[in-house]
Amino acid sequence: MIPQPPQNPQGRGPTRRPAPRPRPHGAPAHHAPRAAARPRFGSSARSSHPPRRSKTRVEHQPDSRNRPLNVIIPPPAEDTVRIIPLSGVEEVGRNMTAIEFGGDIFLVDCGFAFSEVDTPGIDYILPNTGYLEARRDKIRGLLITHGHLDHIGGIPYIIDRIGNPMIYTRKLTGMMIKKRQEEFSQTVPVQIREVEKDEVIRLGKATIRFFGVTHTVPDSMGIIIETPWGDAVFTGDIKLNHLDGEPSDEEKKEFGIFKNRNVLALLMDSTNVWQPGFSIPESTVYKTLENIIKNSKGRLIVAMFASHLERLIRVVHFAEEYGKKIVIDGRSMRTNIEIAREIGIIKYRDDTVIAVENMEQYPKENLIILATGAQGDEFASLARIGNKTHKYIRLQPTDTVVLSSSVIPGNERAVQKLKDNLSRQGAHIITYHASDVHASGHGNREEAAWIHRQIKPKFFIPIHGYHYMLRVHADLAEEMGVPADNIAIPDNGSVIEIQGGGEKIVKLPVKAPSEMRVVEGNTVSQLSDVLMRDRKALGQEGFCVVVATIDRRTGRLHKSPDIISRGFVYLRENKELMDQTRLIIRKSVEQAMRNPRAGDLDAAREDLAESVSRFLLSRTMKRPIVIPVIVSI
Amino acid sequence: MIPQPPQNPQGRGPTRRPAPRPRPHGAPAHHAPRAAARPRFGSSARSSHPPRRSKTRVEHQPDSRNRPLNVIIPPPAEDTVRIIPLSGVEEVGRNMTAIEFGGDIFLVDCGFAFSEVDTPGIDYILPNTGYLEARRDKIRGLLITHGHLDHIGGIPYIIDRIGNPMIYTRKLTGMMIKKRQEEFSQTVPVQIREVEKDEVIRLGKATIRFFGVTHTVPDSMGIIIETPWGDAVFTGDIKLNHLDGEPSDEEKKEFGIFKNRNVLALLMDSTNVWQPGFSIPESTVYKTLENIIKNSKGRLIVAMFASHLERLIRVVHFAEEYGKKIVIDGRSMRTNIEIAREIGIIKYRDDTVIAVENMEQYPKENLIILATGAQGDEFASLARIGNKTHKYIRLQPTDTVVLSSSVIPGNERAVQKLKDNLSRQGAHIITYHASDVHASGHGNREEAAWIHRQIKPKFFIPIHGYHYMLRVHADLAEEMGVPADNIAIPDNGSVIEIQGGGEKIVKLPVKAPSEMRVVEGNTVSQLSDVLMRDRKALGQEGFCVVVATIDRRTGRLHKSPDIISRGFVYLRENKELMDQTRLIIRKSVEQAMRNPRAGDLDAAREDLAESVSRFLLSRTMKRPIVIPVIVSI
Repeated sequence: MIPQPPQNPQGRGPTRRPAPRPRPHGAPAHHAPRAAARPRFGSSARSSHPPRRSKTRVEHQPDSRNRPLNVIIPPPAEDTVRIIPLSGVEEVGRNMTAIEFGGDIFLVDCGFAFSEVDTPGIDYILPNTGYLEARRDKIRGLLITHGHLDHIGGIPYIIDRIGNPMIYTRKLTGMMIKKRQEEFSQTVPVQIREVEKDEVIRLGKATIRFFGVTHTVPDSMGIIIETPWGDAVFTGDIKLNHLDGEPSDEEKKEFGIFKNRNVLALLMDSTNVWQPGFSIPESTVYKTLENIIKNSKGRLIVAMFASHLERLIRVVHFAEEYGKKIVIDGRSMRTNIEIAREIGIIKYRDDTVIAVENMEQYPKENLIILATGAQGDEFASLARIGNKTHKYIRLQPTDTVVLSSSVIPGNERAVQKLKDNLSRQGAHIITYHASDVHASGHGNREEAAWIHRQIKPKFFIPIHGYHYMLRVHADLAEEMGVPADNIAIPDNGSVIEIQGGGEKIVKLPVKAPSEMRVVEGNTVSQLSDVLMRDRKALGQEGFCVVVATIDRRTGRLHKSPDIISRGFVYLRENKELMDQTRLIIRKSVEQAMRNPRAGDLDAAREDLAESVSRFLLSRTMKRPIVIPVIVSI
Repeated sequence: MIPQPPQNPQGRGPTRRPAPRPRPHGAPAHHAPRAAARPRFGSSARSSHPPRRSKTRVEHQPDSRNRPLNVIIPPPAEDTVRIIPLSGVEEVGRNMTAIEFGGDIFLVDCGFAFSEVDTPGIDYILPNTGYLEARRDKIRGLLITHGHLDHIGGIPYIIDRIGNPMIYTRKLTGMMIKKRQEEFSQTVPVQIREVEKDEVIRLGKATIRFFGVTHTVPDSMGIIIETPWGDAVFTGDIKLNHLDGEPSDEEKKEFGIFKNRNVLALLMDSTNVWQPGFSIPESTVYKTLENIIKNSKGRLIVAMFASHLERLIRVVHFAEEYGKKIVIDGRSMRTNIEIAREIGIIKYRDDTVIAVENMEQYPKENLIILATGAQGDEFASLARIGNKTHKYIRLQPTDTVVLSSSVIPGNERAVQKLKDNLSRQGAHIITYHASDVHASGHGNREEAAWIHRQIKPKFFIPIHGYHYMLRVHADLAEEMGVPADNIAIPDNGSVIEIQGGGEKIVKLPVKAPSEMRVVEGNTVSQLSDVLMRDRKALGQEGFCVVVATIDRRTGRLHKSPDIISRGFVYLRENKELMDQTRLIIRKSVEQAMRNPRAGDLDAAREDLAESVSRFLLSRTMKRPIVIPVIVSI
């Protein structure tokens, strides 16, 4: 099973040297560019790449290094609800949870995570769906809370593996999933059944309900799965649209449904519960942006995630209200606004949005450029404006750039560089530090507390977040009245059961498969620790190939050994070091040839690598990976 | 000129495999461990490593790749003050500025920066002192504002290169510099002349004064260099110890000296001026820590930078006041507290500090452990507590861990992992997000504004920070009344002149050498872009060595080619890919041997690398560095 060639391989042109590193074939244009020194995390604001050439055909490598996929976990007992957070509970991202009872499995969300510092060279990290693959026939449906990549990103890579179950979600989310699937060539097209938040559906033996929640993308919803012993409630990503701590009427109404419900278990977003108080409500951000738009005297460049669709819609609305023209610069942004217009959640006149080429026809103070790249993404619109490679837009000192986003951990340097570039050209920059131009989509502690008070669960399982975040959320739940024994903090793959007909919560000693599955190029495979270790070492120390050609008859080197190194030290400045290394090589190989194991090239190679490593370490305090090549002639 | 062997090379033991990666020889124990996947930035809280074995003998490589060091910049005119921010103005770190007039050069600070994502494998980044090396005879002294590494870290690597000038600084800073020099074997010992903040000294033809400023380490000071046309004022790192925006009496007194002075130019810290309002004053942090200490019912672990010496002193004081015992766990912390005690800025009873081994003799609620590692540093005390490898300390659910620090950009993942590990063991964690247990040492916008009002400079040069930070500071200065034409925003190496006897400020078109100088192991050299590019590529893509042995007579491969790869793909799972690659190798080499250039091994190698690269890219979408080895026999 090796990866198949992509349908339109790049780098086969007439040039002798490999072309600049291509984007992953057909990777959706709103994904992180693989060539970036640091993969970025977290949003779909990754447009503006060169147009993709072909659809991705996903290849799957077998998991050969670990226990078999069908690890024996017997089905849950008849009086038991089994809940398995497959991933997303030791990180922020790749959310996916399975709930199983009465012979049915229901899945909630199917996200991926962007690669970070611990997984160099990897594109995305997927949930491990080994448990599900061995139980495909029980899967009754995949329920999706909203359309962000940490909730839908895994679908193209996973849906085939788990038997292509029906996807249940709201209109906009469904559109976003479908749009994304267009970038992949799937054996079977995904099946989506649109639901509305007030709808009640029957899946397998269970009744399933939905409720609207506040997040940063429209059509976000929570999910209620009715078990025989009460509701299992998933909030999805959630915050409150509060006014000085008072939730909106709409939220009060949505959560009103819990007044008379018997909630067995709550599974809830924990991302920002460790932040005290209330988060800035999105309405405050809208007010701030409205003021900036209303009062702007020069060109305004507003950069944000395309996934912050609610805010995007508001900006378009304000623009129209104050007679401004909009340039949309960034493919993901354009796509999202088009989807939103198509399903009617945004309305604007055709002449409100103008082409970037026609920008010069309008007075500066009437122009708003909506741009992607607020995270410093190397190929996004704003980066190109910053480094003066944008085809149409050059900054002017009267321009104002609004970075309507926070800085995702890991992106600080990239954003700093972006801000440096923008301010070097004289633009005025407004960030969320000094102005309420951004708010998180995840609620703080007091918002979580209010939600707990509405839902009043018997059992609590914090999800979405690193362990510390879950732990803080668990502490909050305890304060809110859930007994400590009724709380289970999961790890990825934890098999949690509510047993005895809703009597007690138990974490089984056995785990569902949870080794990392990763996407690299178009290939899905299990993460190789060896590969990661080597890449980290190479990225710091480089490598050194030493080639010795030995004359079998004389046991002596045929000629002076060759040394080829990359990423180690700058060889041109270290001639003497190289000369000394050659002596070490000669000595090591000739000695190996003289000893009783003479002719045992493996041993000679091992000796050679060791001698050279040790010598280079003593001279340079570096540990390049040494590859010994001994050719015996 | 190649690096000399360290005096006690490691890795020469009897083991066959290289020992675990050593720390840089004799690098001060409070530096970042080189083995860490991500080098950390910013503080001296890096203790607790295995004890160092020998002193570092710094080796210097010639700058061979760029223009000569003695780049021709004529001396400043007689009516001119020349100011060169050598570095620290395109980053946070490695602060060093030169000021030159009347035939004298004065230097302010000599810091280094920790390596970041753009310089993989590098330990530290130094100011480029090429300009000074060509003008050693003019250097009258090195003035140091305070003892943090971004102000003193460069000294052991630079002081010899610039002719070992006298260092002028206050007592504690001098002690910190001396302590650090003990780790290096210098040809000539550094010369330190202690000054006091109210002292007036004469250097060259200039009078120099000092004034006390608030930062996070005692003995921080600003510097006034009197030029014939007014004062050049350096604030050093600075914040205000304000109460609701009202500076302390001490600060009012210190800045009172500017009432009757004629300030020609202000060079001021810009690090946090982009943050609105006032920073949290350190006194608030002390109150918070006092309350936590007073009320703690279990063991308290307080983690912070050893460089936050003021705060460290307060914690020791509170501990004694509330009858607690202190365990100091972390070498840099112990060193700093000892220095502080030696010079009398902290006093405590001998029995207040107890040995970690004796901890069990005291009731939990009376114990405070001062630990390093709040940034997630892999080898620091707190990390070892977190991952249960600490020799003496195991966490208990009644423990409280106070992370008395912010998270330095780039360290988020490491700190997250630390918090996850700590909370997995049940400890309660207090961070600066939910409690005022940390404040920055750099003032916000309104603090900067107050300082500007006191100093009232004619010309303004923002220093210490990324360009965006300097720009925001420049905008503030303009608001405070400095005309735009009197403000110069420097880059590293900018030659700024105040000409015509204090008439106007000019940025010369020529720059002082500003290529990056870096420390890797014990070697100082100019940064190699090629090396960095290779390391970044290797860290994502790995490499592949292909070895073909060719029979010169037949022009055919002698045997099946060898393929050795690391960091590329997991070979064991890609046998078919390797087999196909062997075919490509055979085809490429045999073809090369058949063509008119037959025997031209260089061309054959080039062809081979290209064929293999292209093939691997098409199959895997990865671009490993391909090293072709062709042996002709």
